[in-house]
Amino acid sequence: MPEIPDLTTLLPAEARARFRHGLVRPTAGISRGYAQANVIIVPRDLAFDVLLFAQRNPKSCPVLDVLDAGQTTGRLMAGGDIRTDIPEYIVYEHGEPVERLTDITGRWRGDLVTFIVGCSFTFETALLDAGIPVAHIDQGVNVPMYRTSVPCSPAGSLGGPLVVSMRPLPASQVADAVRITSRYPAVHGAPVHVGNPAEIGIEDLGRPDFGDPVRIPEGHIPVFWACGVTPQAAVMASRPEFAIGHAPGHMLITDARDVEYAIP
Amino acid sequence: MPEIPDLTTLLPAEARARFRHGLVRPTAGISRGYAQANVIIVPRDLAFDVLLFAQRNPKSCPVLDVLDAGQTTGRLMAGGDIRTDIPEYIVYEHGEPVERLTDITGRWRGDLVTFIVGCSFTFETALLDAGIPVAHIDQGVNVPMYRTSVPCSPAGSLGGPLVVSMRPLPASQVADAVRITSRYPAVHGAPVHVGNPAEIGIEDLGRPDFGDPVRIPEGHIPVFWACGVTPQAAVMASRPEFAIGHAPGHMLITDARDVEYAIP
Repeated sequence: MPEIPDLTTLLPAEARARFRHGLVRPTAGISRGYAQANVIIVPRDLAFDVLLFAQRNPKSCPVLDVLDAGQTTGRLMAGGDIRTDIPEYIVYEHGEPVERLTDITGRWRGDLVTFIVGCSFTFETALLDAGIPVAHIDQGVNVPMYRTSVPCSPAGSLGGPLVVSMRPLPASQVADAVRITSRYPAVHGAPVHVGNPAEIGIEDLGRPDFGDPVRIPEGHIPVFWACGVTPQAAVMASRPEFAIGHAPGHMLITDARDVEYAIP
Repeated sequence: MPEIPDLTTLLPAEARARFRHGLVRPTAGISRGYAQANVIIVPRDLAFDVLLFAQRNPKSCPVLDVLDAGQTTGRLMAGGDIRTDIPEYIVYEHGEPVERLTDITGRWRGDLVTFIVGCSFTFETALLDAGIPVAHIDQGVNVPMYRTSVPCSPAGSLGGPLVVSMRPLPASQVADAVRITSRYPAVHGAPVHVGNPAEIGIEDLGRPDFGDPVRIPEGHIPVFWACGVTPQAAVMASRPEFAIGHAPGHMLITDARDVEYAIP
């Protein structure tokens, strides 16, 4: 794989500018210390169902901000544009992913409401600071994400499975990772599952539904966190007329410091 | 004042049955150990604005549950009926409180969506267990609540002032009260203000906007928490066609243990 430039120290506005001007890559490790976020964009008439789905599934869908219909920027992305500042987007029609785009200006509509949802990349700095390895960063790939057999609580027309991200950890560091991430409830908080993937319906860790597989070192245990791709899985399962999401792992980098989402 | 029977040990379903059959009184201290909740009921076409208002003002409007349009019971009130199980309701038309009722069955409509919002009565058991006095319980009155000069973040057609509840505390126990209540973010969490009421636009502690005044013992400091009456203040300020709320201090007593809303 090509050498990846060091983007860890970019300010969020600088990172968003890179993506706006064409850089396409997963965002784990970029702008270290700043919160990253999932995005789900839907027409106004689906917005209540999305917000209610989030309220009923707070572990996977912690809403950090909502942009009113037609609004293209917000308080978490000063000077930014939600149509261009994410590395890659997926357009859904009737639940089918029909296009991957790096700019959705051509698909924008005045009735689109944007939900900005917490992402577990946000607590990875805290894990790294505690000496806990993050495999997908070490291996230079996107985080692996999986659909589970765990159903979300439905809301109106929306329902679907819980999606999780996975980080393999040394057995001796699982407890610390639980303790540290539980302090970040707005970005998925503590793991939803530790250990056997089959118990939550994951058949093969080597074939994630989204993102890339990671090599699991000897003696490491897979640890699963709720994932903000869950609303997109609900779109795929529930087939609303139109929606746009970020490409999994290709997040909005916000101006908020990760510590703003930590509880004391 | 008449002697108040000891209702502290009633199970939530028993308390709801008392209210269903006509008991009218504030609920502080009833069914100790169980979460109490505010209620705001609006037509479906206002529901997104209410949920977005709550998302943007999480300190005052922590949503515990949402009953779908027309639903009259939910997971927090097994066997209950949202139309009868609250001691007293207020009906609003165009923002004006037009009726106080102990039963809203006659005003019910199939398009009404119910929002169940956390209440600071929930953490009073934890305060009492720590030896921190709760003045309105000691004095046998409703908690005093005040409109402040602090604006909420608006959402769609809804906007209005932050409403707070007040508990006077000995200066030596303010820090403990902050520490304890900060562990209950779903029921308003830590105080929003400690001390001088004028700084948040409260002119006279002796004349609350909702509830009863409490006597402030010598050496006690007023401590203010965000209050779930805030959505009703938004209704009064924003004047939607129709809404129903609980009478302030007259809460829904839920089946959830208060500790379910505590963070570790």
